[in-house]
Amino acid sequence: MSKKNANLEKLATLSRRAVTLEGISQLLSWDQETYMPESASPARAEQRKLLAELSHAIKTGPDFQKALEHLCDIKTGKLKTNGLSLVDAAEVRIYARDFAREKKLPSSFVQEFTQLCSESIVVWQKAKTKNDFRLFRPNLEKLVEMVRKKADLIGYKEHPYNALIEEYEPGMTVTIVDGVFSEIRQAVQKLLDKRKATKVKEIEIEATPDQQLEVLHDVLNLIGFDFGRGRLDLSAHPFSSSYHPTDSRITARKGSDSMIVQILTTLHEAGHSFYEMGLSVKDYGTPLGQHISLGIHESQSRFWETRIGRSQAFWKLYLPRLQKRFKKDLGKVSLDDFMKQLNHVQPSLIRTDADEVTYPLHVILRYELEKELMTGKLKVKDLPERWKEAMKSLLGVTPKSDREGCLQDIHWSMGAFGYFPTYSLGNVYAAQMFESFSKKHPDWEKRIEKGDFGFIRDWLSDNVWQHGRRYDGTELIKKISGKALTAKPFIDYISKKYGARGVN
Amino acid sequence: MSKKNANLEKLATLSRRAVTLEGISQLLSWDQETYMPESASPARAEQRKLLAELSHAIKTGPDFQKALEHLCDIKTGKLKTNGLSLVDAAEVRIYARDFAREKKLPSSFVQEFTQLCSESIVVWQKAKTKNDFRLFRPNLEKLVEMVRKKADLIGYKEHPYNALIEEYEPGMTVTIVDGVFSEIRQAVQKLLDKRKATKVKEIEIEATPDQQLEVLHDVLNLIGFDFGRGRLDLSAHPFSSSYHPTDSRITARKGSDSMIVQILTTLHEAGHSFYEMGLSVKDYGTPLGQHISLGIHESQSRFWETRIGRSQAFWKLYLPRLQKRFKKDLGKVSLDDFMKQLNHVQPSLIRTDADEVTYPLHVILRYELEKELMTGKLKVKDLPERWKEAMKSLLGVTPKSDREGCLQDIHWSMGAFGYFPTYSLGNVYAAQMFESFSKKHPDWEKRIEKGDFGFIRDWLSDNVWQHGRRYDGTELIKKISGKALTAKPFIDYISKKYGARGVN
Repeated sequence: MSKKNANLEKLATLSRRAVTLEGISQLLSWDQETYMPESASPARAEQRKLLAELSHAIKTGPDFQKALEHLCDIKTGKLKTNGLSLVDAAEVRIYARDFAREKKLPSSFVQEFTQLCSESIVVWQKAKTKNDFRLFRPNLEKLVEMVRKKADLIGYKEHPYNALIEEYEPGMTVTIVDGVFSEIRQAVQKLLDKRKATKVKEIEIEATPDQQLEVLHDVLNLIGFDFGRGRLDLSAHPFSSSYHPTDSRITARKGSDSMIVQILTTLHEAGHSFYEMGLSVKDYGTPLGQHISLGIHESQSRFWETRIGRSQAFWKLYLPRLQKRFKKDLGKVSLDDFMKQLNHVQPSLIRTDADEVTYPLHVILRYELEKELMTGKLKVKDLPERWKEAMKSLLGVTPKSDREGCLQDIHWSMGAFGYFPTYSLGNVYAAQMFESFSKKHPDWEKRIEKGDFGFIRDWLSDNVWQHGRRYDGTELIKKISGKALTAKPFIDYISKKYGARGVN
Repeated sequence: MSKKNANLEKLATLSRRAVTLEGISQLLSWDQETYMPESASPARAEQRKLLAELSHAIKTGPDFQKALEHLCDIKTGKLKTNGLSLVDAAEVRIYARDFAREKKLPSSFVQEFTQLCSESIVVWQKAKTKNDFRLFRPNLEKLVEMVRKKADLIGYKEHPYNALIEEYEPGMTVTIVDGVFSEIRQAVQKLLDKRKATKVKEIEIEATPDQQLEVLHDVLNLIGFDFGRGRLDLSAHPFSSSYHPTDSRITARKGSDSMIVQILTTLHEAGHSFYEMGLSVKDYGTPLGQHISLGIHESQSRFWETRIGRSQAFWKLYLPRLQKRFKKDLGKVSLDDFMKQLNHVQPSLIRTDADEVTYPLHVILRYELEKELMTGKLKVKDLPERWKEAMKSLLGVTPKSDREGCLQDIHWSMGAFGYFPTYSLGNVYAAQMFESFSKKHPDWEKRIEKGDFGFIRDWLSDNVWQHGRRYDGTELIKKISGKALTAKPFIDYISKKYGARGVN
């Protein structure tokens, strides 16, 4: 390999420092959710604030700017240097894009916004507990106002929402999302219209927390999770977090009463973790060693949770193992009944409890409301009613309270507008990837039934993980499948799986 | 309260940032010893290196220097400002002293030294495992050479060792330590000469790791350890570490086979932790919110481990509770027999296993050898033999191998010369403190027997914790006891406790 351009090296060094600080902050957050003594919350907030400040200073500092200006026009991203390899040129473009974005927000704005979010999270929690939207309304109004300001500062074409979604899903636009979501919506509605409201008996498994952890470790070992580079712990809400490809951790829910949900969730988090562990160690801290976007991240978790974890092949392998452990509850259950229960479809109020058919409708609802809040078409004061109407029209159910309605998610209180669509884009990406994957491995089910998961990790590594951020999500999916992003594979998947026998 | 001087405020802000980064680094170290996946070691080293670099840059940077120069002459520490309160003036002096020390070591030296230490720890571990001093010798020679250079760079009066011990125990000198240690040595030798080599049967308690943890949590709750601000976990070697007064954690030994040693060690670590939790939250990150020195820190751990944990009063309270749990092993043991076993004196080879009578001799040995290495009187190549002779002469036992001899401790491989004396100074401080404490609370034994420990914490808080670094160790002990540092209370204590019935 030829010697790297000195300015590019400089950018890499600075970027690695910033990313290292961000990784440390993530670890502090993991610690907070798992082991930190309660009273340390304020001190922990100070620690993370300082790390964020230092990392921001590096990424927007004069050293970074100088090196970048040698390589490209910062405003347009146009390269000034000839003779960069394709990969190097891609790196410079990403540095320039990130830099421009960071610089567009004055630090006074960032500080004010961060402060508002910290306060709003607390207020939202209180409002949710008390089921009182009025408590949260003033904060949400300020948040919406500041997020609209943010979009203006960043600048956008066509729709202010484009400035927001770009933060989580570079290259994504309202036009693309509108197209994809409207197809999904129609397809799901069609499935729900044919729905037979059969009651499916829930399979309950009595398992102590220790037994749950044993099973989850077993599942993780089975699919090849490397405990030399990761951990599984318990926390109030399951999450995955990563500080380096050699240190990526996941959690399962503390006090969960469903063994099956724990397994699916753990597969989900493991999917996130596999991605992070699969990033290039030598490119750590530079764009070539980073994940692409939240949508692509979610594609990895959904790939493992839904395409593997909800497949008949997986349970043909794993149900007998589970039955051995839980003879009393599972001894007499047939694979067919188990699969029916696992893939039961039931429109419901809470996004995080939704099945894979109705899940996208929850996301579409939030996406539509966010867009309306951004254009000003919807006022915050009218949100609770609008939410109820939208739920009725999309899912046919109406929340009795705001706690089960517009107060259910934490995202808005964190200022994370533009985040929700990535959840469903993850499913769309995953389905499009899976189509290519299963063409390459038509025998995937047989291999899973035999306990072989390495070929899945290899395929994902070759096609996704190793590229870092070299491609945007839409570029990557085209590279993998030969086609532009399309909802068709996802729709085909749910239609085939749930349409044949009718959603039950 | 009057408004603080603006420059002093500036120093406090910068210091708080540096201390916050150091606290984060400590947490990363805790994580490494408890939960971190194995493969993350190199990434963790990079994280901690970056934090050290950033913190050093703050403490030696131009902003810090400028604010400090407004307040005092940096070289002499002489104040330039009138009208500072006594406390503020003390703060400025400490800032100036720390700054001068940090600046004396060129960053090229610090980097080279840090690098050498990282490598040497690995080499030392290997040499210890293989029981082969020759492996470690080249590193130790380089370490000694660099530490001598360090003493020269820092500068000293009378003895190069003064420059080293100052880092761990500000205000301490070879002259003071020599005096204290020579008195202790004579007193201990006198006790050992009268020693009857009685065999005392060890009390063995069969306890699973979970049972041990239960007992340790029980003990910690009993003495008032606040689990809202701390934790107990397991690690290869017990330690305490702290990131803020609201977050201070301790560990017990993973795989220990002695319940009693676990209890004493946990009391020891809790003593460290109480000190950190007792520091002023509002002064966090400034000298007024920091511990004084390693010796004073050790005084806190020894206070709880030896003066409380080895007292008859404590076991009058706790032995019955332990007997309830471990009927089979403890049911028939009398308090008197138990105390005999607990306070059994037996010269041995390993410092960390030593009883409280012979422990100081282990420290004195290292202290004497370190001084000789610093002056060049002792060459590294002669260390193993010199160690054996000194052990024979001090403790009457001779190690058969270097693993049990000069390779037993990690400290030298970490470049920590000048550290060892603080272990015994801790006992001396603790004894002198205890004399004042027991004058104030002559009924301390009766109160402990009733399970009252709050008055001990209160006394330590009033007399030690709340002062931060306002006083050096020798100043604090004078403030508490009215006397200069003296070995007499420690000698009185061991002579009374072990002399009356003869060391057994």
